[in-house]
This record gives sequence, C-alpha cells and structure tokens, in this order.
Amino acid sequence: MFITKPALFIDTGRVKRNIKRIADKARISGVVFRPHFKTHRSSEIGEFFKEEGVVSITVSSMDMARYFADSGWKDITVAFPVNIREIDVINSLAGKISLHLLAESEQTVNFLDNNLLYSVDLWIEIDVGSGRTGIDYSDEEAVVKLAGLIRNSRKLKFSGLLTHAGHTYRASGNEEIKEIYRDMVDKLYKLKESLRRNGFADIALSVGDTPTAGIVADFSEVDEIRPGNFVFYDVMQYLLGSCKEDDIAVGVACPVVAKYGGRGEVVVYGGAVHLSKERVSLKNGTVIYGMVSQANSDNAEDGWGKVLKNSYVRAVSQEHGVIRIAEEYFDKIKIGDLLYILPVHSCLTVNLMGGFLSLSGRYFKVMSHG
Amino acid sequence: MFITKPALFIDTGRVKRNIKRIADKARISGVVFRPHFKTHRSSEIGEFFKEEGVVSITVSSMDMARYFADSGWKDITVAFPVNIREIDVINSLAGKISLHLLAESEQTVNFLDNNLLYSVDLWIEIDVGSGRTGIDYSDEEAVVKLAGLIRNSRKLKFSGLLTHAGHTYRASGNEEIKEIYRDMVDKLYKLKESLRRNGFADIALSVGDTPTAGIVADFSEVDEIRPGNFVFYDVMQYLLGSCKEDDIAVGVACPVVAKYGGRGEVVVYGGAVHLSKERVSLKNGTVIYGMVSQANSDNAEDGWGKVLKNSYVRAVSQEHGVIRIAEEYFDKIKIGDLLYILPVHSCLTVNLMGGFLSLSGRYFKVMSHG
Repeated sequence: MFITKPALFIDTGRVKRNIKRIADKARISGVVFRPHFKTHRSSEIGEFFKEEGVVSITVSSMDMARYFADSGWKDITVAFPVNIREIDVINSLAGKISLHLLAESEQTVNFLDNNLLYSVDLWIEIDVGSGRTGIDYSDEEAVVKLAGLIRNSRKLKFSGLLTHAGHTYRASGNEEIKEIYRDMVDKLYKLKESLRRNGFADIALSVGDTPTAGIVADFSEVDEIRPGNFVFYDVMQYLLGSCKEDDIAVGVACPVVAKYGGRGEVVVYGGAVHLSKERVSLKNGTVIYGMVSQANSDNAEDGWGKVLKNSYVRAVSQEHGVIRIAEEYFDKIKIGDLLYILPVHSCLTVNLMGGFLSLSGRYFKVMSHG
Repeated sequence: MFITKPALFIDTGRVKRNIKRIADKARISGVVFRPHFKTHRSSEIGEFFKEEGVVSITVSSMDMARYFADSGWKDITVAFPVNIREIDVINSLAGKISLHLLAESEQTVNFLDNNLLYSVDLWIEIDVGSGRTGIDYSDEEAVVKLAGLIRNSRKLKFSGLLTHAGHTYRASGNEEIKEIYRDMVDKLYKLKESLRRNGFADIALSVGDTPTAGIVADFSEVDEIRPGNFVFYDVMQYLLGSCKEDDIAVGVACPVVAKYGGRGEVVVYGGAVHLSKERVSLKNGTVIYGMVSQANSDNAEDGWGKVLKNSYVRAVSQEHGVIRIAEEYFDKIKIGDLLYILPVHSCLTVNLMGGFLSLSGRYFKVMSHG
C-alpha cells in the first residue's frame, strides 16, 4: 500500500483490546455498558462491540442515531439536549427503536409531551461540575419538579439521571480523576435520595467519560457507563494518564515535504483539515497538536513505532503540520518519508478524515456529514 | 426554509463585494490577482471570480488543484511544498494545465527534474518571518544555488520568489501589518537583486495573506497577490482589523437547545465538528470560538443581525457550543431559536460543513474530502 497523502490508520488489535478491557470492567461491576459511538462513527467498528455482547449504545446527534439505527442498533441514547427543531427525526426513530433522550428544561419536556408520536425514555441531565449542560446538581427542586412533569406525560418514561463529568479532562492526574468520580457519585446519590423521598423509586444513574472508565476500578454504584473515546484513545487521554502509549490505536500517516535543519523542524502534508486544531499542553507548558512516530517499515502493515522523544507537532495550518524533531532523529528523516501523527483528539480527527484504514489495508467508512 | 440542525450560510452580496474590492485593488496596482481558493473550495464560488476577470488561482493541495482543473481553471498554483509522493497526480495535471509548484530543497528539485513528464512553473518559497515553510530570507546562497538547479532542469521553468507572510496573523493591528508588508518587500527585493547579479533577470514576486490584501493600499512593488480568506472573512480577520463586521459573509445557524440563567449562558447544537476548534483571544485575554448574532427574522433570507455585544462562544465540544450571552439579550433568546455563529476561521468551518447555503436557499457544494 503506497500512501500519497494524509491517511488515518487504526490498529484493530489495539481497538479490540481497548473495547474488551472496558467491557470486562462493566461486566465485573454489573453495569450496563452503553459505549459512545461518536469517536469511531463507523458501523463496522460497531460490529467489534457486538462481539463483546454490547446491545445498547450512545450517540451525540440525531443524524448519528439514524445512521446506527440503519445498521441494526435497537437501543440508542442521544446524549445531547433534545433539539426540538428535529422533532420529525425523533418521531421517525422513536417508532422504530428504543430511543433515549436527554432533557433538563420544562419547555423541552412540555414540547416533547405535546409533539411525540411514540414513547421515548427520558433522562434528566445533571451538571456535576463540568459547566456544559444539565441542571446544576445543587438544584434539587428543579430536578424533582422536572421528574414530576415527565411522570405526568403520556409519552415520556422517566429513566433516571445522566451526567457527563467532562471536568475529568481538566484533571491533573489519576488521583484527581478518582476524586471527581467519587464526588459525582455522591452528588447523584443525593439527588436520587431526594427523588425517592418524592416518590420516584428505582431511578437509574448513567455516567460517561473515558478518563473515569479507564481509571476507576469498580462502577457498581451506578447503573450504566457511556465512555466513547477509549476505543481509539489519543494524546489527550495519554497525557491525562487514562491510557498507555501503546493503547493509542490511531495514527495519521503524513508525507514529509520539507526539512529545516536550523530550526530542528520538518513540515508534513497533514494539518488542521486532517488532525483538527485540538491542542493540549505538556507538563512544561508547551502547547502541542500531536505526538510523532516513524513507520516501523515500508509496509503499512507493520504499523508505527514508539513516540519520538522531545518531538511533537508544534503548529498546524490548513494543510501544513510543523513538527519539532529532536536532534537524535532529525538526520534519519528524509523528504518523502511518512511520519505518523498521533492526534490530540481522535474523535475530531476521525470526523475530518471521513474514514480510516486498518494496518492490513481494510477501509472503514464512517457516517457522512449530516 | 426551516433549519433543523447547524447550517452554514453565506451572504452572496457580501461575497461579491469582498471579491470586487480586492480585484479592483489588484487592477489599480497592476498586479496579477491569483486568489487562493482554499477558503471556499467551491467551483460555483469560483464563477464569482471569473466575473471579475480572474483567470489564475491558488490552491493548497493537489486534490484541490484537480478539483478546480476539472471545473475549467487552466492556471493553478499549488501553494504547498511539493509532496513527491504525489508525482502521478502532478504529471497528470501538468499535461493539461499551466501548473505552478513550490520548491525549496535540492532534493525536491532533483526529484522533479528526474520524474516530471511535462513542464511546470516552479517558484522558490521564501520564509520572510512566518517560520512555517520556505528558505529563510537571509540564506541568499541557498536561493541562488536552487535557482541554478532549476535553470539547468529540462522540465522546470523558474518563475520567481513566492512567500506567505503568515506572521501578519500575529500582528497587533493595521500599522504592524503594514510594517510586515514593508519588511517582506525589502527582503524579497534583496533576494531579487542577488539573483539578478547571478544572471536571473525578470524574477517575479508573489505574495499572499488576507490581512495585507485588505490593509495595504498599493501592491505595485510585487507582481502577484494570492489572498484567499477575504472572500468570506471571519472573526480572526475582524479582530485583526483586516475587515469590518459587515464584511463577514459566513454564519452558522445553530439551534438553541438549553439555557442557563445562573451562568448567563446558552448551549447550541453546533460544536467543534461544525465550527472547528480554532480560537482567538480578545484584547482582554478572553479566548473565544466565535461571535454571535440573532436571525433578523424567521426567514433565513433576511440574514443575521449585528453581533451581540459582550457575547461569544466560550467553549466548543464535539457537538456543543457554549455561548456566553450578555444580560440584555438573555431573556429574548428561547430554546428552539436559531443563533448565528460567526466562525473564528471560515476556511476550517467550510471544510467541516462540506457545503453552504445562500440566504435565498441556493445550495453550494464544495469539493469532497480527498
């Protein structure tokens, strides 16, 4: 396989190992494993999950729900606040599959109650500290009131409380991630108890995010986990300590087009339209757009090697990647070589690349843009 | 037209005005206007340029060169260091159109000389301070040596010196941009004189970047200008002072899905897979991912209004946009409304959205991903 331009590769051995590790943990904890499919966006990778017994999934848009429903998934949570403008798609899916939606406002719950043609499962989203979406965990009154509205609806079934502890991405390490998880469980239990006192028994708790999925050992206090990124991992997860370097299952093969001895840099064909502009800071404060490794051999089948030390993507523009290369490797890299860039955020890279190759050359299509 | 999910709109009146302004300036300066088409990526927008008499264009990849050659463009510069792995595409295009390429290393020039089947125009790229690609402007010896190699080649015609003064994007305002332009011209003239002394007469100078195209009044010292972003502009250009607010010709219509009174924030359906993760700092240090305005009416035809003061996209995740809304507007925005987000970097937004609509509902397709 001769690569002429930026190409996204996945190591399917690592992908299957990553899936099995979290599936095993969910089984041992006795919780539902409802993986988020926004990272891979591929019905073919979905099949890898079926081999681990997964039957329920999470997606981030109605378009993605439709795509995976079309490839046979029957139990889908759209982990995004209901967009009432999409009521037609919601109704068409609700008639076919077990559809789970998220709400947090009376306006949205009333709209659904008035406009749904079929029954859906509704979760109340709780903000346990990430500051993105959800009712603030401290507002017990709003949660109880909304639960009451849902109970009185003819079309809505109240499933429970759902949260995404996105603030784990800002954590300094494994201990802080464990603390965030502990804190999240405490907050959800307090709300669950408050709901129980108000007549809502058997409320389920659903939690997300890859950092806790990798680091927390036992999930038995909750009912469902929804991590997604772990299927491929990436530099952000690696730097957070939520995976090891050889768990990262994606690399973008990029041709070297220029070398700058004076700067200790090379430029590759591979920029923001391939990797995205996601960035992350190293411990020393350096902002990077990816880590770098070399091909193990001229055959893509052999994959990429260890990450090059003290080397990283320093900047990206639309098509250019500017890579700082440590002196010990610089002379070994020639114009026309391929470097593999491990992306900072694999979800965004997959979305941009619109498909990927296994190391043996199998092409995986992903859902097209809405 | 009822919008259900994030949709990219262009105001074609503004687009045509933006094109005419730079085309007029090029005419008055007596230089070739070779616009960069990486921003719009659309053969239909290309037609707007033909109406202004444009016959030569710039692109950022061989795929883009092929796309625009297929829609009738006969004179194309690929403003990216030659990727020798794409020699087959280069040869197939070089046989059909006037193809201009960039080189900066002996290895690449020798490779082209040995592998080209047809003649191409070759520019030497010069780094005048942006630190991305090109031979450093101070290395006169390398420039003269490379020009000699090109002259001795049977397939290569030496066109001149080309540069992209990307450091204008880091400028603090119009005066600094004018200084960078002045400095760039001085550096190029010094190299031109050095080449003349070595027997290279009539060397052309080609310069790029939208900030100088908007701010510098007279380009008669150079031979060709290659700006691109000016066709749509964006928040980055606006904050640089290279355009006015009502020159920005793109807005992403995004449904409001949640409101947070306590935080003074709303969340829209519209995130990193729509806008990109491009960010920019306001003068006060606040990092933003877009500016925000409201629809002028329920009809998309009426476009968007003035930018909301003290309101901005504070954060984006994959599908979420978190928007800080000033108190004066907060109560007027309801769940289900559309907000228009003016993107920080229109090139990346167009690439992600894969197409756009005029306000009257005409759909413009853009080139598909490689």
